Amino acid sequence: MAAAAEVSNRSVILKRHVTGFPTEDDMELVTATVRLAVPPGSAAVMVKNLYLSCDPYMRSRMTNHKEPSYVPDYVPGEVIPTFSVSKVVESGHPDYKAGDLVWGMTACEEYTLITSPESIFKINHPKLPLSCYLGVLASGAVGQLVGQLAKITGCYVVGSAGSDEKVNLLKTKFGFDDAFNYKKEQDLNAALKRCFPEGIDIYFDNVGGAMLDAALLNMRLHGRVAMCGLISQYNLELHEGVRNLACVVTKRVRIEGFIVMEYFGTYRKFEEEMVSHLKEGNITYVEDVAEGIENMPAALVGLFYGRNIGKQLVAVA
Amino acid sequence: MAAAAEVSNRSVILKRHVTGFPTEDDMELVTATVRLAVPPGSAAVMVKNLYLSCDPYMRSRMTNHKEPSYVPDYVPGEVIPTFSVSKVVESGHPDYKAGDLVWGMTACEEYTLITSPESIFKINHPKLPLSCYLGVLASGAVGQLVGQLAKITGCYVVGSAGSDEKVNLLKTKFGFDDAFNYKKEQDLNAALKRCFPEGIDIYFDNVGGAMLDAALLNMRLHGRVAMCGLISQYNLELHEGVRNLACVVTKRVRIEGFIVMEYFGTYRKFEEEMVSHLKEGNITYVEDVAEGIENMPAALVGLFYGRNIGKQLVAVA
Repeated sequence: MAAAAEVSNRSVILKRHVTGFPTEDDMELVTATVRLAVPPGSAAVMVKNLYLSCDPYMRSRMTNHKEPSYVPDYVPGEVIPTFSVSKVVESGHPDYKAGDLVWGMTACEEYTLITSPESIFKINHPKLPLSCYLGVLASGAVGQLVGQLAKITGCYVVGSAGSDEKVNLLKTKFGFDDAFNYKKEQDLNAALKRCFPEGIDIYFDNVGGAMLDAALLNMRLHGRVAMCGLISQYNLELHEGVRNLACVVTKRVRIEGFIVMEYFGTYRKFEEEMVSHLKEGNITYVEDVAEGIENMPAALVGLFYGRNIGKQLVAVA
Repeated sequence: MAAAAEVSNRSVILKRHVTGFPTEDDMELVTATVRLAVPPGSAAVMVKNLYLSCDPYMRSRMTNHKEPSYVPDYVPGEVIPTFSVSKVVESGHPDYKAGDLVWGMTACEEYTLITSPESIFKINHPKLPLSCYLGVLASGAVGQLVGQLAKITGCYVVGSAGSDEKVNLLKTKFGFDDAFNYKKEQDLNAALKRCFPEGIDIYFDNVGGAMLDAALLNMRLHGRVAMCGLISQYNLELHEGVRNLACVVTKRVRIEGFIVMEYFGTYRKFEEEMVSHLKEGNITYVEDVAEGIENMPAALVGLFYGRNIGKQLVAVA
């Protein structure tokens, strides 16, 4: 067996735990070397990362939680884990061989040795843009997809976004029935009343805070709130208080939280459905691709200022 | 047909809409006369009220809501509607005859002419104390019953109450596994951690506010919150903010509100089950009976200071 090549491996590490908004200086690009091989006899897989995913939930992992959080905190000095689209360069696992395209949990680096191959999935539709496997076919951007899937099921869909450009995208490219710029609305309650004069049946919550509070005021009887995330709160040391929970009783509202990890078991079904939608043109998507791993810190920080338009990715190679 | 008797009818009216804590002075005892008869040809029922119910939700109806609430606001100058146990004195409705015992929505007065007999129910077990039909067999006190029903289904049950006397009742008379006095706890989060070191599966919320916030911190994965009421908030002009809703996502919690009115269709089934529990001694209950309609305002106000021990009733006659 020929000696494995040793190559340069740039990675982004977390320098320190974060309070408040993260900055680029909380992360650092470092360069090491890696042998493109898996330990003899192991079922590990060595991959070259092609795209890295930047997702709002990553902010939570930058915090030093006093009690264990729902996902482990990132460790200062270590490479930041994230989802990626990757190519197998060496495999000790019978399901994977060199050249296979995969997506799953790796890290912000050029090459990752995956020792838990249950955290990666084969890419079954390599003719689609590979970046789909970090966006429309996997982890988001959630809002644009939820709205389009809701339209497909016959809902009247209104979106909220943070710039006129994004509002315009929702109404034109994504076919939402209406949308508003929450940064320009004096009164979110009034905005929702204008868009939903008869109230809201389903509120898909990605933001929490003031928007959730206004939504609760405008829910219909037996309305449902799917809680996916609270990006408006992630950088606050003390989360804002939600004052309108009495509406949960008076309107018999159901609020339920969920996390994608619990639904990996149905991923293949979702993948096939979504691929059909993409091929038939029922679903479209927008992504925002930063070029080069050195731009990963800025791309991640930008999420919390709404700088991205569509799913934020980093093209590594 | 003999001329119907005309009798004195004392009632409690709401003098004005309320902000903040209600006071006895917000209500007034007035005396009128009433003919003990139903309009000829009508399906109305004239009843004599024996017990009146004092319930926390009545506070909401004392407010002058800008937008329609889930139940109509009380009207200043009019008799305050409430649940009662009553005896039929005259009936134009084929299902009721003089002497029948009923419970349902009437008002704070000695005699009520019921023009919507669908809001009353026959009392099927008149050998039980009649007051049961405002308490354990109908509208509460909710907490003591929920805890006992949870025990019957095998739950580990911890109660929160506002005095050592009530805490003692929960642990002895009602058989809760544990209980604490929330007014004596410096830190509700710590109190819940002490009582539930492995977390809470089901939180039955009657209070909202700080207790709900602490409960959210202590929910287990996939825990459930049944929201029944928020008595800690009813007298506040601005409700307190609940800051721990991120736990709904991270722990995949479900929160759902409900109102008893929606379950009247299954009342007969509940009644038979609860009567069995009472007869077999599986369920016990405590009620707090004020004597005389003139004491109804004080009894109602007392609810919001936790003066009652058990279900608050007023014995009219």
